[in-house]
Amino acid sequence: MILLEAKNIAQIWKNETKQELDSLKISGLREPHLAIIQVGDNPASSIYVKHKMKACAEVGIKTTNYNFSNISEPALIQLVESINYDPLVDGILVQLPLPAPILKRNIIKYINPLKDVDGFHPSNIGALATGHPTFIPATPLGVQFLLKKYNIDIQQKNVVVIGRSNIVGRPLFYLFSNPPNNNTVTLCHRYTKNLPEIASKADILMVAIGKPNFVTQDFVKEGAVVVDVGINRLQIADNQSKIVGDVDFEHVKSKCSAITPVPGGVGLMTVSALLSNTLLAFKRIHGI
Amino acid sequence: MILLEAKNIAQIWKNETKQELDSLKISGLREPHLAIIQVGDNPASSIYVKHKMKACAEVGIKTTNYNFSNISEPALIQLVESINYDPLVDGILVQLPLPAPILKRNIIKYINPLKDVDGFHPSNIGALATGHPTFIPATPLGVQFLLKKYNIDIQQKNVVVIGRSNIVGRPLFYLFSNPPNNNTVTLCHRYTKNLPEIASKADILMVAIGKPNFVTQDFVKEGAVVVDVGINRLQIADNQSKIVGDVDFEHVKSKCSAITPVPGGVGLMTVSALLSNTLLAFKRIHGI
Repeated sequence: MILLEAKNIAQIWKNETKQELDSLKISGLREPHLAIIQVGDNPASSIYVKHKMKACAEVGIKTTNYNFSNISEPALIQLVESINYDPLVDGILVQLPLPAPILKRNIIKYINPLKDVDGFHPSNIGALATGHPTFIPATPLGVQFLLKKYNIDIQQKNVVVIGRSNIVGRPLFYLFSNPPNNNTVTLCHRYTKNLPEIASKADILMVAIGKPNFVTQDFVKEGAVVVDVGINRLQIADNQSKIVGDVDFEHVKSKCSAITPVPGGVGLMTVSALLSNTLLAFKRIHGI
Repeated sequence: MILLEAKNIAQIWKNETKQELDSLKISGLREPHLAIIQVGDNPASSIYVKHKMKACAEVGIKTTNYNFSNISEPALIQLVESINYDPLVDGILVQLPLPAPILKRNIIKYINPLKDVDGFHPSNIGALATGHPTFIPATPLGVQFLLKKYNIDIQQKNVVVIGRSNIVGRPLFYLFSNPPNNNTVTLCHRYTKNLPEIASKADILMVAIGKPNFVTQDFVKEGAVVVDVGINRLQIADNQSKIVGDVDFEHVKSKCSAITPVPGGVGLMTVSALLSNTLLAFKRIHGI
């Protein structure tokens, strides 16, 4: 069984981005600039934003953090539009979740698709869905990078994705179904009947539903590759908790040919994926 | 076995559209206006365009047909953009296929998404893919309408779609996977291994690959619903041909609980779907 640890791979990817940025800087270009918009005081969001800004600084991407305790939908749209037209900003990221009553899709559709480094704008989703990706959302992009670096064959397999969020499950479906991966993908969700039976047909099983230890041995075919995107905090005693995935790792690992750990797996890839997408936006805007 | 004949259903749908248009006209609105752009002299395209224009006339939709034997990509884009801004045109349809070297996605992305009655613009695909459909492409919309009118249960089933074209297979996937249908859908294609095994798990099997009689008995579960989107001309003797679907109808029908015939099935639904989408565009533009 191969443990698909991400720490070194995420660092390698980050280094690749840094090297490319260094060489672009030598050629005389300004540094890329990412705008990060955060609304509300979700503590997890604040930690994510901090990680993203730190990683950007490490590779040479300038960031501006717009942080609002409270803002109306129209005012937020106005901000997004002003950044859209700012030639000195290459990427726009709206940290999710957005607090009610703001609807994320009301905001995301106003982001200039060329600056949409999260890949959530409908036209970027459409491009990915039809096999001509512009920006691939960070988590699916990170999963693909991780599996490839471990030389996992991710082409023409039977793949089952459990969970159909717009951030993970659905874009995983598009990315792994389309050329060049050409897998046969089944997208499962809360209404799927006989889920263990369907999942246990998968050569590659991907799970992103946010339910601790949901995937048990009977979901997994002998020799399958298991990708666990879940990150759940599980209370194990008074005042004591631990982070677990959606997969019952201890009981499943012996059946897998490869499995991502939680923590230390997919979650570590997403910031590197964001850096890569920001570099991509920068290069496109500069016609490189 | 229920034969899912479309002729009457397509007519009922057309009548519904006509009735709504009649009542809008009474309220004083101008008639809807659809621009149909055709390039080259593909004989099948000419027949389709003629059918579409005739059906539009029947329900009270004005059409303008732009017909070019030859036009450059930039000139075609310029035409599309001029129609985008014409307040007297509600829908734009670019008849496919476009002759080489014109790339259809280079043209489609310039159509105003609000006038994209085919639903092929990336942002409309993205909206459908993420469960907030704006325009649903005609074939999937027609399939859904047909099955519902026959009271086929199309929710929370295991669905297998064979074929992943942007016009049929992929949008069938989005429409049937997303709420409110919530099926568990597997998307199969030329690289799918053990296709009969996968297909024969389906409660609803949909086929759109353009290969005559490709789906044989061993693809079909006892009691399945089979939707055949294929339209193939098969040579049966010198100077004699007939239209067949992708399903070996004669040998498969006895296993199905319901099956669409070819001809007389899904193909008849698409023009009615186009009328419905044009009405939708018209209503949105007029804030109805």
